[in-house]
Amino acid sequence: MKGESRGGVSVQASSSHSGPTPFPKVPRVSGCGGCGPLCLRIYIALCPGSFARCTAFVPLRLSENTQLRYVATLALSVQDQLTADDDDDNNMPFDTELTRRLGIRIPVVQGGMQHVGYAELAAAVSNAGGLGILTALTQPTPDDLRKEIRKTKTMTKYPFGVNITLLPALVPPDYAAYAQAVIDEGINIVETAGNSPGPVIKKLKAAGVIILHKCTTIRHAQSAIKLGVDFLSIDGFECAGHVGESDITNFILLSRARQSLKVPFIASGGFADGQGLAAALCLGAEGINMGTRFMCTVEAPIHRNIKETIVKAQETDTALVMRKWTNTTRLYKNKVTDEAIKVEKAATGDKFDDMAPLMSGKRGREVFINGDPDYGVWTAGQVIGLIHDIPTCHELVTRIEKEAEETLTAKLSLASSKAKL
Amino acid sequence: MKGESRGGVSVQASSSHSGPTPFPKVPRVSGCGGCGPLCLRIYIALCPGSFARCTAFVPLRLSENTQLRYVATLALSVQDQLTADDDDDNNMPFDTELTRRLGIRIPVVQGGMQHVGYAELAAAVSNAGGLGILTALTQPTPDDLRKEIRKTKTMTKYPFGVNITLLPALVPPDYAAYAQAVIDEGINIVETAGNSPGPVIKKLKAAGVIILHKCTTIRHAQSAIKLGVDFLSIDGFECAGHVGESDITNFILLSRARQSLKVPFIASGGFADGQGLAAALCLGAEGINMGTRFMCTVEAPIHRNIKETIVKAQETDTALVMRKWTNTTRLYKNKVTDEAIKVEKAATGDKFDDMAPLMSGKRGREVFINGDPDYGVWTAGQVIGLIHDIPTCHELVTRIEKEAEETLTAKLSLASSKAKL
Repeated sequence: MKGESRGGVSVQASSSHSGPTPFPKVPRVSGCGGCGPLCLRIYIALCPGSFARCTAFVPLRLSENTQLRYVATLALSVQDQLTADDDDDNNMPFDTELTRRLGIRIPVVQGGMQHVGYAELAAAVSNAGGLGILTALTQPTPDDLRKEIRKTKTMTKYPFGVNITLLPALVPPDYAAYAQAVIDEGINIVETAGNSPGPVIKKLKAAGVIILHKCTTIRHAQSAIKLGVDFLSIDGFECAGHVGESDITNFILLSRARQSLKVPFIASGGFADGQGLAAALCLGAEGINMGTRFMCTVEAPIHRNIKETIVKAQETDTALVMRKWTNTTRLYKNKVTDEAIKVEKAATGDKFDDMAPLMSGKRGREVFINGDPDYGVWTAGQVIGLIHDIPTCHELVTRIEKEAEETLTAKLSLASSKAKL
Repeated sequence: MKGESRGGVSVQASSSHSGPTPFPKVPRVSGCGGCGPLCLRIYIALCPGSFARCTAFVPLRLSENTQLRYVATLALSVQDQLTADDDDDNNMPFDTELTRRLGIRIPVVQGGMQHVGYAELAAAVSNAGGLGILTALTQPTPDDLRKEIRKTKTMTKYPFGVNITLLPALVPPDYAAYAQAVIDEGINIVETAGNSPGPVIKKLKAAGVIILHKCTTIRHAQSAIKLGVDFLSIDGFECAGHVGESDITNFILLSRARQSLKVPFIASGGFADGQGLAAALCLGAEGINMGTRFMCTVEAPIHRNIKETIVKAQETDTALVMRKWTNTTRLYKNKVTDEAIKVEKAATGDKFDDMAPLMSGKRGREVFINGDPDYGVWTAGQVIGLIHDIPTCHELVTRIEKEAEETLTAKLSLASSKAKL
């Protein structure tokens, strides 16, 4: 592929792409009501033709300095991606069931993350060669999800998916309407998770959607298989968020999946690098799913303080809460989880009233906006201890691909005489 | 190497070995006070020249039928081993820091196991190409350990080690005397575990012994490095026995070890097969340590009912007890652990009195002799769910070697264009 250099950035000539370009040229930024001229000025200077993305930063209410930093790093990410596109034809894809079925290049899925899985992140992961995923319930209504899907399509030409997580709620969201939005917008990959996903999966399958279903036990995996899911996403005890109640680690769960499941599976929980991808492949997975690791990338639309908190954290900096209500959740250990653990210990019977304000999703969402890691609860996996930088998604996924290949090559060379011949 | 066939078993001509033969010919079985003539008769018929081992079964007080079964399977194991010796020269060893330093062929260590790590098992693992390990404290006195070491030497010409686990006790064993026995008998590999191993490690290091130290956190690993240990044995949350209090899984701990530790390490907890070995190597380990898996081999000197219990068990069939006393232990989930969990929940303060009879080591030892899995507590890892047969150690270790190599070869072929060239 040929490109031309503008302002230090290699920009694709649109004729060299079939289908929409990853970052279409937009003459003006509609709906940009908050970022202000600074954002635009820098973005346009660094990366002409790509500034449609800056609208994403309006809801983050960033200070001018933070805008500056975000936009600069985002522009570098775009530069990365455009450079990467040049290499596309030189790189053979990983050849796993996952890459073949989903039409992606590297078997790395960005898992659904509440208040994180917006268009910016999903498009960046897909542009990097993995599978980006929008989180349906982060959008207030099915119509908002439609808009987010359309926005993502303007930002990547590659496949991406939507996560629909079904959790117990007093007033459940209209899951069927979210699923319909996905179908109507032509999305053909959905990650499902949570309880009683049967009706949603049935609806999506009828529309020909490929389903990746997350589960934390082999028993749940077997139920999901009966529902006709295409891939299982096996989520070990080390994972962020809902870990289940069996506490089985991924070394065991993945091997058990290999031994007993008849559908392909990916490994979720505990992954941050190519050594992890190589290990997951060895245990029988077709790829990996990463959440916490993708939170700590340039494109993740969350406050930089939270990313820096992840970089500083140790593997021991997560906490489990809600076990008493058999809804165990792994969270970043902070002042709120410390308080929640005290309340949980003291709670008798089914009484959840004192926990509710601590576990508030609204406060959790605020964390990502105001950058105060102690403001509310937010999910993080034990893998938080393995994350030491804030790369672009392209840097990260490319690094993982390289590490995985180098690792398998190096380890095979240890293995036996045959390998040495 | 050449062998001759006797009674269907290929027996090595003694001249083909340098050093002691793995199973020396003993004209009579001294100290065989219980097994009786049946044991001897079958053993000699199936495997002439190897019957020195039958003395091991005296303390097990087996019925005649059980003797028959044991001896028959043991004889097959010997046959296996002798056949394996024929292949020795055709197989290149795995080339890891562990195999090089310990002088073993396959990077698989049989971890120390109370009431299981006797000469029979250690010798069988070492004969199979891994590292067998005697458990020092299973021997009532340091002198008994000397005898067990000498016995093991008559059963294998290959390196084996001794485990010394230091646990809090009202009347601690004379660890220094056990360490002295190890040194006096010329054992140059010791696995240490538990609290405050400093003095024992110092004594052993001064005698030139290679130390593998088990730990469940990176912090403890760093302390052990300061003591001069040669290898760390990184023990994830999935492991049997003392899991520590941080609950960090091996996917995280091993990666963290690779990122942060300056001494080589092996992976412990969660391993049963070659896919696991391949994955551990990918995460940076120099080999694996297996306990529960080796309990479920022909040569493990425990009642067959317990092995069959392991085969039937699921990964969810373990339980954690003793967390209240920060001495959390993973055990096979049975009637006694169910009771212990109830008592632990009800316990207030430091009160341990009601737990003590349930956690009795004496009753745990009886389990392995009488074959009743509900008789007392016995340790098992989550890996119990991955074990589906009772192979000989040779079958198992050979299978692991083959699986690991095949896995790495197959996965590398998925990885990239370069791998496909």
